[in-house]
Amino acid sequence: MSVSDSAQAPSLWELVDDRLLQSCRVWDLRARRYRLPQAKEGEFYYIDSRDWVMVIARSPLGELLMVRQFRCGSAALSWEFPGGIIDEGEDPVVAGLRELREETGYVAQSGRLLGHCSPNPAILNNTCHIVFADQVQLAESGTEWDEHEELEARLMPEAEVFQWAKENKIGHALALVGLLYYQLDQ
Amino acid sequence: MSVSDSAQAPSLWELVDDRLLQSCRVWDLRARRYRLPQAKEGEFYYIDSRDWVMVIARSPLGELLMVRQFRCGSAALSWEFPGGIIDEGEDPVVAGLRELREETGYVAQSGRLLGHCSPNPAILNNTCHIVFADQVQLAESGTEWDEHEELEARLMPEAEVFQWAKENKIGHALALVGLLYYQLDQ
Repeated sequence: MSVSDSAQAPSLWELVDDRLLQSCRVWDLRARRYRLPQAKEGEFYYIDSRDWVMVIARSPLGELLMVRQFRCGSAALSWEFPGGIIDEGEDPVVAGLRELREETGYVAQSGRLLGHCSPNPAILNNTCHIVFADQVQLAESGTEWDEHEELEARLMPEAEVFQWAKENKIGHALALVGLLYYQLDQ
Repeated sequence: MSVSDSAQAPSLWELVDDRLLQSCRVWDLRARRYRLPQAKEGEFYYIDSRDWVMVIARSPLGELLMVRQFRCGSAALSWEFPGGIIDEGEDPVVAGLRELREETGYVAQSGRLLGHCSPNPAILNNTCHIVFADQVQLAESGTEWDEHEELEARLMPEAEVFQWAKENKIGHALALVGLLYYQLDQ
């Protein structure tokens, strides 16, 4: 039985309305009204956001490049992989290599997609692409941080990164998704 | 060098204000004003949410229990693991076993934490706990869905679940985090 023709598949809800509640700089808070099965209706809040990209960058010695930065949601420093918002019309791999260079000063000759995910299909409408860039090198041009960016970059042995994941030192869900895709790709 | 005493650690920002913008049923949109390094200030939006729990439930035959449901953010059906919002003061393992029973009708004698993560430390302030429940059985009491819940439950061989992850059939980032923790636990 394929996924799509399951007899017990839940219903797709019918969209009735979709309106902006609050513009929040790089994402918007919106509300959608749905007509549910059995003719019920309900309003549901969600975040309208551009797609994101995250980069697993590996050095010639096989180390993975991690960054640490202050995060406003958790109000704490967070260890994760470099990444950011994909520009309008920008290719996810190009965006990943751009974010890598801007945030860490590391560059790669090429990259490829490892996979993608919905950061949270319950409340976000976007996709996060996970890019792998091998043989990264520190460029002379240095970093190019956004106004509020301040990052620490660190190359770490691959085994140590997985050990950190196991010890819950890597908190960001998307970084952990990246690690799973990286492992499935090996 | 330990994580905490790094010489290049980014700064912790100083909180100046924190206000409610919009109550969104099970989470709130809020804005925090921060004083940044170099005496700059900035306002940042974030989602104030209770903690979540997700359950990796395994049958006596070694299959993993997956659910599919309509998700309002992605406006699509989504394959993921059972889970939900932890009640005030509720133990994460207890919450996980409760959500498992309510959503799927499966019960377990016990569960244990596999790990936790920040679903998105950039815009969310909460934690998602990942619980493992082994030897789950379908109870006679059946499911107990919330008003807007309609789920399909399916037991799948473990290898097939990882294959689905590889083929991007499992989109929910938190489900993928759960798979990583499950794998690191084996």
